[in-house]
Amino acid sequence: MRKVTYGAAVSLDGFLAGAKEEIDWLRQSDDVASIMRESWKGVDAMLMGRKTYEFAARMGGAPAGTSKIRTYVFTTTIADAPEGAELVRADAVGFVRDLKAQPGGDIFLMGGGELAATLVEGGVVDEIGLNVHPILLGAGVPMFAAMGGRIDLALVEARPIAKECVLLRYRPAR
Amino acid sequence: MRKVTYGAAVSLDGFLAGAKEEIDWLRQSDDVASIMRESWKGVDAMLMGRKTYEFAARMGGAPAGTSKIRTYVFTTTIADAPEGAELVRADAVGFVRDLKAQPGGDIFLMGGGELAATLVEGGVVDEIGLNVHPILLGAGVPMFAAMGGRIDLALVEARPIAKECVLLRYRPAR
Repeated sequence: MRKVTYGAAVSLDGFLAGAKEEIDWLRQSDDVASIMRESWKGVDAMLMGRKTYEFAARMGGAPAGTSKIRTYVFTTTIADAPEGAELVRADAVGFVRDLKAQPGGDIFLMGGGELAATLVEGGVVDEIGLNVHPILLGAGVPMFAAMGGRIDLALVEARPIAKECVLLRYRPAR
Repeated sequence: MRKVTYGAAVSLDGFLAGAKEEIDWLRQSDDVASIMRESWKGVDAMLMGRKTYEFAARMGGAPAGTSKIRTYVFTTTIADAPEGAELVRADAVGFVRDLKAQPGGDIFLMGGGELAATLVEGGVVDEIGLNVHPILLGAGVPMFAAMGGRIDLALVEARPIAKECVLLRYRPAR
């Protein structure tokens, strides 16, 4: 079964970006580069919500699929698939469940918080990896949209990394 | 100057309690007991918002002051001071700034998130200590109410403790 990882850099108060989508507070480091390299090893598909896709596009580069990585954008509003991406229009959880059952590499969930909440609640996310930054944003884009119930987790790893960030990794406790 | 510490147990998604104020997910351990003992060492005043005070009262024991610890409840709605507590009716930040300048021991901020946000934004909180629990609550009482601006922090400590919890300690980066 292909593993689905939700990976995100977040503020201590749990935001992926500020209220105006600011991400200038993100800290790069050799640790982050090496963690990212490790996270993407063996990944051949990425999942993202429509807002995340459009945000990435506005940032100057739509994360189009490559020959190695397929991109799935979850949306009910985009009419045509952007180049290099496939649209998923309904039943995100069912789609990901099917995708996991197909042969292939691992799957990286880019976010945002709405898709992450849907997929975590749907039980199809196998790991959550957060790079907690030493900042309170006060408001912004939450890493998880509101969910209807609790999700118990098991701690996989917790350690400080460069630039006063903290890596937290969890898997659902099943 | 007396040190003000905001200490809280939170879910990974940043809630102090569930949407119905549930706190049955909190994990006790020798580590937690020892961290609490250490946190309260030298403390002779505690601060809490009205909702936190009432919640504690509903839980079966209003956190009344003792001969050793003075309790300050921040409220604009409670008419009479509960036994053992003093009411603070206005200008929470100014009150705490004055309190810090008076002689005395350290000060523990119990929360909730509204008072914490006010005091952190006001620059009178010296340390934030979170015991991050391995659970997503999905909704609930946030550890910080929305704030108007960013607060840069410096990481003091990050380490896993018992029961798959993680201790994160920060101070404002000044």
